[in-house]
Formats: sequence, structure tokens, C-alpha cells
Amino acid sequence: MTLGVGVIGTGMIGQDHIRRITEVLSGADVVAVSDVNAETAEQVAARLKHASVRATGEELVKDDSVDAVLVCSSGPTHEEYVLAAIQAGKPVFCEKPLATTTAACRNILQAEVAHGSRLVQVGFMRRYDAAYRVLKDVVRRGEIGAPLMFHSGHRNPSVPSTYTSDMAIVDTAVHDFDVARWLLEEELVAIRVIPAKRNTRGGALTDPLLTVAETKSGVLVTVETSVNIGYGYDIRAELVGESGTASLADRGPVVLRSQNQVGVAVPRDWRERFLVAYDVEFQEWINAVAAGQGATGPSSWDGYAAQAVCEAGVQALHSGERIGIDLGDRPSLYFADRNERALDT
Amino acid sequence: MTLGVGVIGTGMIGQDHIRRITEVLSGADVVAVSDVNAETAEQVAARLKHASVRATGEELVKDDSVDAVLVCSSGPTHEEYVLAAIQAGKPVFCEKPLATTTAACRNILQAEVAHGSRLVQVGFMRRYDAAYRVLKDVVRRGEIGAPLMFHSGHRNPSVPSTYTSDMAIVDTAVHDFDVARWLLEEELVAIRVIPAKRNTRGGALTDPLLTVAETKSGVLVTVETSVNIGYGYDIRAELVGESGTASLADRGPVVLRSQNQVGVAVPRDWRERFLVAYDVEFQEWINAVAAGQGATGPSSWDGYAAQAVCEAGVQALHSGERIGIDLGDRPSLYFADRNERALDT
Amino acid sequence: MTLGVGVIGTGMIGQDHIRRITEVLSGADVVAVSDVNAETAEQVAARLKHASVRATGEELVKDDSVDAVLVCSSGPTHEEYVLAAIQAGKPVFCEKPLATTTAACRNILQAEVAHGSRLVQVGFMRRYDAAYRVLKDVVRRGEIGAPLMFHSGHRNPSVPSTYTSDMAIVDTAVHDFDVARWLLEEELVAIRVIPAKRNTRGGALTDPLLTVAETKSGVLVTVETSVNIGYGYDIRAELVGESGTASLADRGPVVLRSQNQVGVAVPRDWRERFLVAYDVEFQEWINAVAAGQGATGPSSWDGYAAQAVCEAGVQALHSGERIGIDLGDRPSLYFADRNERALDT
Amino acid sequence: MTLGVGVIGTGMIGQDHIRRITEVLSGADVVAVSDVNAETAEQVAARLKHASVRATGEELVKDDSVDAVLVCSSGPTHEEYVLAAIQAGKPVFCEKPLATTTAACRNILQAEVAHGSRLVQVGFMRRYDAAYRVLKDVVRRGEIGAPLMFHSGHRNPSVPSTYTSDMAIVDTAVHDFDVARWLLEEELVAIRVIPAKRNTRGGALTDPLLTVAETKSGVLVTVETSVNIGYGYDIRAELVGESGTASLADRGPVVLRSQNQVGVAVPRDWRERFLVAYDVEFQEWINAVAAGQGATGPSSWDGYAAQAVCEAGVQALHSGERIGIDLGDRPSLYFADRNERALDT
Repeated sequence: MTLGVGVIGTGMIGQDHIRRITEVLSGADVVAVSDVNAETAEQVAARLKHASVRATGEELVKDDSVDAVLVCSSGPTHEEYVLAAIQAGKPVFCEKPLATTTAACRNILQAEVAHGSRLVQVGFMRRYDAAYRVLKDVVRRGEIGAPLMFHSGHRNPSVPSTYTSDMAIVDTAVHDFDVARWLLEEELVAIRVIPAKRNTRGGALTDPLLTVAETKSGVLVTVETSVNIGYGYDIRAELVGESGTASLADRGPVVLRSQNQVGVAVPRDWRERFLVAYDVEFQEWINAVAAGQGATGPSSWDGYAAQAVCEAGVQALHSGERIGIDLGDRPSLYFADRNERALDT
Repeated sequence: MTLGVGVIGTGMIGQDHIRRITEVLSGADVVAVSDVNAETAEQVAARLKHASVRATGEELVKDDSVDAVLVCSSGPTHEEYVLAAIQAGKPVFCEKPLATTTAACRNILQAEVAHGSRLVQVGFMRRYDAAYRVLKDVVRRGEIGAPLMFHSGHRNPSVPSTYTSDMAIVDTAVHDFDVARWLLEEELVAIRVIPAKRNTRGGALTDPLLTVAETKSGVLVTVETSVNIGYGYDIRAELVGESGTASLADRGPVVLRSQNQVGVAVPRDWRERFLVAYDVEFQEWINAVAAGQGATGPSSWDGYAAQAVCEAGVQALHSGERIGIDLGDRPSLYFADRNERALDT
Repeated sequence: MTLGVGVIGTGMIGQDHIRRITEVLSGADVVAVSDVNAETAEQVAARLKHASVRATGEELVKDDSVDAVLVCSSGPTHEEYVLAAIQAGKPVFCEKPLATTTAACRNILQAEVAHGSRLVQVGFMRRYDAAYRVLKDVVRRGEIGAPLMFHSGHRNPSVPSTYTSDMAIVDTAVHDFDVARWLLEEELVAIRVIPAKRNTRGGALTDPLLTVAETKSGVLVTVETSVNIGYGYDIRAELVGESGTASLADRGPVVLRSQNQVGVAVPRDWRERFLVAYDVEFQEWINAVAAGQGATGPSSWDGYAAQAVCEAGVQALHSGERIGIDLGDRPSLYFADRNERALDT
Repeated sequence: MTLGVGVIGTGMIGQDHIRRITEVLSGADVVAVSDVNAETAEQVAARLKHASVRATGEELVKDDSVDAVLVCSSGPTHEEYVLAAIQAGKPVFCEKPLATTTAACRNILQAEVAHGSRLVQVGFMRRYDAAYRVLKDVVRRGEIGAPLMFHSGHRNPSVPSTYTSDMAIVDTAVHDFDVARWLLEEELVAIRVIPAKRNTRGGALTDPLLTVAETKSGVLVTVETSVNIGYGYDIRAELVGESGTASLADRGPVVLRSQNQVGVAVPRDWRERFLVAYDVEFQEWINAVAAGQGATGPSSWDGYAAQAVCEAGVQALHSGERIGIDLGDRPSLYFADRNERALDT
């Protein structure tokens, strides 16, 4: 049986996921689309074999042919579509952020808990990257001892002029926060943000930033965001343990010896870097949903926690202070995660 | 429309490809299977949704539900099944070798040429490996100048006691020969095989071997086969050009700093190394066949040329001499390959 | 003419430098030694060809055969011996620290300024390490744009039980502070120290630490000190610029492929890592002194600045606060440094 | 006591070694020079403190102030100067080649054997390179099992137009032959030379070459010489053992991340690559001679064996045949080498 997926939001990312589902992955098909721009939705649907266009996300969610919902619309609309899917009892994959405020995230948590089982998955694709997964395995096997620090580096060649320093936290470092929580298997409880000397390539943008967060047990998480660094899209990570460290290797598949240099290429953008991770993320989601498991990947709780860290991070950036983060109690629903050990012990 | 694939040979490799087609890839389904061992075929079919069992490969080829044939049976049976598929005008993917003698390969070439368009694709999966593809791109872009030498290394942790030195040529180095032809875009015209000091880990097996082949224009191709080297499955390649070199990078995704060492993991076996290449190989084949292109990957000519090099290689190993290789004229059908520049100019 | 060197302090480090001067380097000889432990001094002198033993450092300084003084005694004694050498108008090489308080360092600055030319050099050997020098060249040539962050990592396999967290700043990170000042060519003006989760391998020691310092222009300097990390003596450094980064490469000269790993060795201790840097440091000092230049390497000002950063760092560690650092005006004597551009523009 | 060294041949290499002895190393001084060009010798002597000029190498050897002789003159003159030094009973360091024919080498062996103890050392500096020494240690410690193959790569950015293909064997690959003998601790007994496709950057020069030599026990030694490869001076080496391999690491001390590349620099020429090795080579020679040991490094036998391999290599290049190498019996004098295990067991 093929899973019928309805896609809300057919912009660049939505179209990429539609391509993925219809041309690359196994076991699902796109059966309905909707977009705030009706014309775009029509054009996208026209290129598909049997996808209807729905006027609104709500109508799409109710469509009987839709077995599962994929939310790729703009961030502020996520809450209502995710809530609608929960209301309809349908699995929903929501691109990050889960919602743009912690309050909205809590509404989703409440609705899902009321529903009684997990329906929501949040699009933190790094957890599906083969290298990050090996990193986690290395730690779990105890090869570096207990982790004490995690150095994360998030470097973009450039960002558009509309990019703000808050976005360096909320849109960029949010991935580092999530992956830190996932690798370390505990929550972040405090955060500082320290601006470095300004990169003049980005005009007046306060960039790069050094973020220093702390987990409940005291592990330090440092995040360097350098979003106009030109040389490439370079995601760095090093876990420092009691007796060793583990870090992401450089990725270029071919060593070039030329012009007095020997080296490998750096990815040019996030698509090149995480293309396969997106494929794996969606295939695993399709498989889990088809198996009736609702969602097994990053949960509403993960989306909420990431959002809470980001809000504290923005406050830390503006105030120059160390800001504490209190998530409150985690509902028992989110301890049953089949892919992860409980984060909250 | 879903492509109906019939699989001849449901042993280990056949089952792996069936899993690939049904669980990983998009656009195809397994509709019929056959195996010399009927029981195995029945068991495999029972795990599939709608696959029939055919008594023989010939019957499977004639089955109307079968749009394309996949040959995974033992080498000596390849010729008859591939010829049957050509006879039926159906696309056929044949695991290497195309056939176990050059004479048999020529029969296939003749039949396919008589048919008038390409139907046959041979399973040289390295051409679908992302790293090899970047290697080829680097050369094509002229980043190292014209290639003058190609050093290939084929290292296995171990081989079973049934493995013979001839197999080091025919089963192992054959991949290096194919990839050399593909990267260099010309034929191999001579070959020497020089045994090194014997690795006692392999008992009486003559291993490792150094093979030195030459292309038409004089590029030297060296192949080290070390099939009991223990430390891992390590495929090495370096193209030496006029002004630089390009080689396959080490692949471990995580750098471990531990116990006075810093390094990455080496793959444990060929599955780990080429898993994704197999996926890409089959997805591209499915896409090409579904688009009515018959076959766009490694051709019967490629299978024939590889076999001819192997036969000369075995002769070279036994005689200690430099053995010339004469392929004869390449039929025009094999110059129309859409994925490659003509190899024979 | 051979330079006559007098060595004050003939413990482990003093003996190593004596070996260096007499057996490895060109142009100098050890002509006098002294030690708080007279017996040690006698034993060391007995192994040399023509070195006398002096009862005190002051007597050694006054010895006519002594052209230049090398201070390797315990830290608290440095001030008096350096002052004595200045008094005698003799070049003096002082192992770090220049003195154990900023007040004492200021005494030395005052005396040297009164003397009117540079006589004092401080033992910051990293500035003589080939890799750090290339790092500095890369930055100066503009290959990464203006530096914005400097990540330094100082990892020791283990420290004795007498080691304290203050020492992680004063004895360990002091090298990172000096090298940051030297690479970035400006002063550090503020410092924070944030302890990470404790490494249980070090018992109750507060380790590892993350230090975040700031230069006058806003460059962030992060220093990870992990002094019980077991896996090796690993000095890491990455300069993050506006358009690229430059970091110290792993150093192992041989790539070992073994047991499913490919990698290189990590140095076991600081001797292995900086052996050659010490040789270069002393040869350059000998050459400069022999040429009548007094001292061209790290100056009293460098020693004073490092000490001031350390004192602020200890205060930051204990208080949890960001501590400002005010060095006061730099005497013009220390702008004439022939090896460095003025740090203070 | 300072060792008085007399230098025969004050061209580029001679001047470099004079600089080394007088400005870098410990324990020796240059006391006499001679050169076929008297003017050059005068100019060089004038820059030294107390070096006399001798009209001929023979006179220099007899000079009472000369404790040891360094031969840096042109290859064809080596034999007579080395013989003169043996005649005078003085230690002599001879830059490679020991002599330009095996017959001449045998004359030297005979004279030295008649003298009764080792006086002659040949300038194979790679044996003093830290990386090669670690390579040898790794093998000796059994970390890769018994060596079965040795892949050596000798790449020059360019050679002058006077360079011939014979020189690729005699001047270039000779270092690879020596280092193979030294690492594997046995003799080479046969050699083939196979030209690759010609590098047009070198005009009509037959380059690159693949040399395949065999040791007595069957270890294969492959040498790639690529002497116009442009990208750098790149010395590669990989020992393939029964259970692993060990190879020279890339050497660049700084990793640069810039312009979509991450990598390190390749040395530009042999001086940059082997500068330190030359220093170590001469310091160890000075120390051994000063200690009355005559010579402990590469012996006349090593010089003779290398020359014999080169002569066979040139024959193999011209004939296209596999050429056997028979060194005859090794005099017992050359088994007493303190730095190496007997090569001939």
C-alpha cells in the first residue's frame, strides 16, 4: 500500500520534498497540495500524476486521500496546521520550527498528549546524517568516555541582506542546539551569546557569534555561527570526552594534489551537505507512518525544547547575560521515544 | 507506471537487489522470480506482495508482467539468460560477469547488435559511486591535466579458502579494469601480472599481486590486489596527471582522537563501501528503462572488454609474460552511449 | 667567538637546555651554573667541559666569563635574577613566567626601560614552532581575511595530583594567551572562564575549562584546557577569518592503516611536540645575542601581558565574572621589536 | 674538541653543507676547502673564519688540520677523493653517488676492506628523515606484519632540459632504491622499467616511469618517477604488509579552509622537504666521527648496491626487459653496521 501524503506549502522546500517523495523514495505518493499562493499549488500539482489541490491547509488535512501531512509553509502557520493534523488523528511531519513561540509549542504538546500517542515529527534532519549517527554511536560505545564539551561550528558562505543576528540563533544555531540535545541526551539549561569582531563581509550584521550553552549535568556546548565566511558550507562538530574526542571528518570524496596544495572540497551549500540526510529522514518517516507508528523521529518535545533554547538565546544575545532555560516537566509520552534513550533522567 | 522486474537468481545478491527494488528505490516492483533452487525462489516470492515464481529463467523472461530482467544467477548461466532477454526485446541488467568467456560475450554483442538498440546493462557498480564520479569530473575538468598513470588498490580483509589467484584477476581486479577504462575513456591493450612476496595469512594463495596494464595511448594502470590484508575493505585509486593527481579520500565520517591516535574507520566489507552505489545504479537503471532508453550504463561492450582483459590477465599471471589484448572493432551501437564519450577514438 | 652562557637553575628544564646548548646548537657554550641545590649544580658542571659552579645566581651573573644568562630556576626567583642581569647589562633568557606577579613584572619593565635597550627574552617557545609560524604567515598574507575568532585547545594526557585549576590558567593556558597575542598582534582586554562538566579521571580537579578572552578589536579567543584527557598531548588551534580559517594540522608523520582504522599518531607529551621549537628558540637567541641585539624574541612586555591575563583569568575562574584587563601604556622600547609588528596600534 | 672538516667541491651543495656545519650544527668547523674552480674556493674560504684553500682534493685530504673529509664535487671525481681519504685513514662523507660505476664502487670497497674498518659514509639523507624513520619503526614493531610490497613515489615539479630519462633512474629513483633496501633490510635482485604515457610538459623526455624491482625474498618495490608534475615536490611511500600498511603522511603543518577547499601545502622542492634530514645526517656523522667510530650511516656497500641497481635499471629502461642484479658476496665489514640489522641474511 502506498502512503498518501498531503503537502501544505509548495515553495522551494516543499517542492524539494515532493520531488523526494515521488522520484527518490519508496512507499509514498503526493496526493494533495495546498499553498497560500493558489497558483503555485496548481503548477506543482500539474506536474504530479494524481495530486489534487486544496484551498487551505485545513481542507487538505481533512482530505480522505491524505494519510499523512507534511507542513512546509512559513513558520508562523505551523501551529495551526499541526494542531489540525492532530485533531484529525493524522501523522504530521513539520519542518522546523515546530512553532515560532514556546507558547505555541506548548499548545501542540498539550493537543498531542490529549490525543494519547505521537503524531508529530519535526524536521531536524541532522539526526539522519550518516556522520552524525556515527558520532553518536562512537559516544554510546564509550570510545571517548563521558562527553564533557561539545564544540559545534555552523558556517555558511553567505546569507541574504534580510538575515538578522536573531536568525543566527533561531534559524541557524537551532540545528546545533537540537543535535547537542540529541547527542548528549540531556537538556540545555542555560545559554550565553558572545559576539566576536564583526565580519565586514556581512555589512552591519553582528556575525560571527559564539554561543555557550550548558546541559543539566554541566556539559558545555559551544556554537560558532559564521554565516558570511565565504569559503563554503562547513558544519563542524567535536565531542570532547573524558579520554578522547570524536569529530565530523571533512567530507570531500576526492583528494586533489594540485598547485602546491593537497586537499578536498568543502560543500557549497546545505543541500549538498544534507541531501542524503533528507532522503533518509523522509524514508524513515514514511516507513514508520506506514507501519502505524505515527512518528519515531524528533518529537514535539524536541521542537519545543529547541524553540525554548532559541528564545533564551535571543534574550542572551540582546542582554549580554547568561539566561537560564526551564522547560518544565516532560510529559511521559515523550519518554517512550523508540529511537532515543530518555533525555531527561 | 511501476516497472515490473523479473529476477533470475535469488541467492544472496539477488535477494539484496530485491530488497533494494521493493524497499528503497522508486518506480519499480519485483513481479517474478526464478532460481535453480525452486525452494529458495518460493521463499523469496512468499515475502513479496505480488511476485510469481517461474520454473526457469527463460519462462520468467517470457512472462508478460516482466518489463525488465535482472540476472543474478551464477556466472556460467548469464549468457543464456541475457540472450533470452535480447530475444524477447526486454531490457536486462546482468550482474558481472556479462559472461564467463569472451566468446560468449561476443555472442551477446552479436545478438544485441542484431536487435539494433541497447538492451543490456552490466553491473559495474563503481561507476555509480559518488567518489569515483567526482574523480571522473575532476579529470574531465582538466584539474590534473591529461592522465598518465592510474594506481588502483583493491584490498580485502580476507577471502575464503576456495578463492584462487585467478579469481584475484577475474572476480577482484575486474572492477579495477572496468573503472580504469571508464575513467580513462580508452581500452586496455596489454597486461602483465607480477606476484609479490606471499601473504602467509592466505596460506598457499599467490597474493598479493601487482598487475600492470597499458591503455592504447600508453597510460599505465597498476592494480594492487591484496585480498587477505585484514585491516579492512579498502579501495584506493589515484590518477596521476600531467600537472597533478586525484585520488579517493579515506571515507570514515568521524575522526576519533583516542589512545595516541587520530584517525577514521576503514570500511569492513564491500557492502558497507558500495551500498549507496548499488542504490544509485539501480535507480538510474529503473529510470532509464522506464523512460524507454533500454540501458544507459555499462554496456555489453564494457562487459566484453572487461572479460577480455581478465582472460589476458590470467594468461599473464600463469606465463609471467606481457600479454596483448585485441578487442576487434567496436560496433557502432556502443559509440552511442549517452553516459560516456566514445572510448575508442 | 663562542657565547658564554651562565645557567641559573639546573633542574630538569635547565639540564635540557644545557644539553641543547652544548650538544645540538651552534655558537654557544655553558660556562657557569648555579642552583639552590649546590650538589645538583656540581654534578651538572662535572659533566661539562669547562663550566664553573657559582654559589648564587647573583654571583653567576657577575662572572666575567658569562656573556648571557639563562634563568631556569623556580618561578618566584625569576624576578631577582632577571633584575640582576639587567643591572649587569647582560642579555637574559627567562623561562616563563617572567615573574609570578604583575607587580614584579612591572619592576622588570622599569629596570629594562631604564637600561634603555632590550636585554630580556621570555621562554614562549610556541612562537618558534614551525607550524605556528606558518599559521602566522597564512594570516599575514591575508589568506583567510581578517581574523575574528581564535580557537585554541590545550590537551594534556594527565597532570600530577598537585596540579590545581589555577594552574590550568597560569601554567597551561598562558601559552595559548601568548600565542593569541602574537598571532593576532593585539592585546587581550577581558576574560571569562567557564568550567565544563568535571573529568572524573582527574578526581576533584575542576577540568576541563573553557576560557573566552577578547582582544581590543573584539576578536574572541576561546581556550579549551583539558589536562587529563588521556589520549595524548594535543595542541589545537584554529584561526577563523572573514573568508576562511587556518588551523594546526595533525602531526603524525606516518599514516597507519591497521585494524579497521586509518590514522596518525598524536604526540605523547610536550617534549615530543615542541622539541624542535626549543632548539630553534635557543639558536635564534644565541644568534641575536652574539650579534649584539640583546633580545629579539618575546619581551618583558610579553611576559608582563601574559601574567596580567593569567591573573585576570584566575579571578574570572573564582568569581564566574568577565574580568577586564588593563595593561597601562606600553613603553616605546617594546614597539621596536624586530620580529613583530607593533601589537598596540 | 672541534672536528676539522675539509670540503672538496664548493658548489651549491658544498656551500649548503658548509653553512650547515658552521652555522647550524655542533662540534665541527670547516678548516679547508678545494674546488676545481679555484676562484669559487677562494670566495667561499673568505667568508669563513679559519679555512685554508687547497689546490687539489688530494692536498686537502693530506692537510693535518683536516680530521674528516666531505666530498661534494662532481660524481666522476668521487672515486679518487674517497680512495685518497681511505689511503690517509681519514673518515670521508661522500655525497651520492659513491662512484659513477659499479667497478669504481668495488675499488672503494676493496680499499676500505683492506683498511679494516669503516671510513666511508654515503649521502643518502632520507634515512635521516624523521618520517622515514618512523616508517621503519612501525615496520620493525610489526604493526603491519611482514612487508610484501613497497610503493614509492618520487615527484618533482620540474627538471631542467638537460635532464635525461637515465637520470630518472640514476639521480632520482636511486633514493627510492636506497630507502627500499634500508626499510626492507634486504637487497634488490631484479628490476623492470616501464614508461608511461609521456608528460608533454617535459617535451620529449620519457616521463613518467614505473619501475618495478624485486627483493631477494620477493617483496615488490614499485617506484613512480614523475619529474615534471608541476604541483610540488612530493615524496610518497607506502609499505604494504600482511595485515596493514604504513605510508608517509602529507606534511603541510597548517590546514587552510578557503575557497571551497580544505587542505595543506605540498613542499615546493627537495630543500624544503629534506632540510632537517640533512641537518640530522651531518650532526650524526660529526658525532660518530668525533667519537672515533669512522662512519655509522650508509656505507660503501650501500653506495655500491644502489649504483648496481641503477645500472640494471638503465639497462632495463633501454631493453624493456627484466634485468637481474647480482652484487656478489658482501664483505664482513659491512655486516657490523651499528645502525642496521644485517641486510643479507
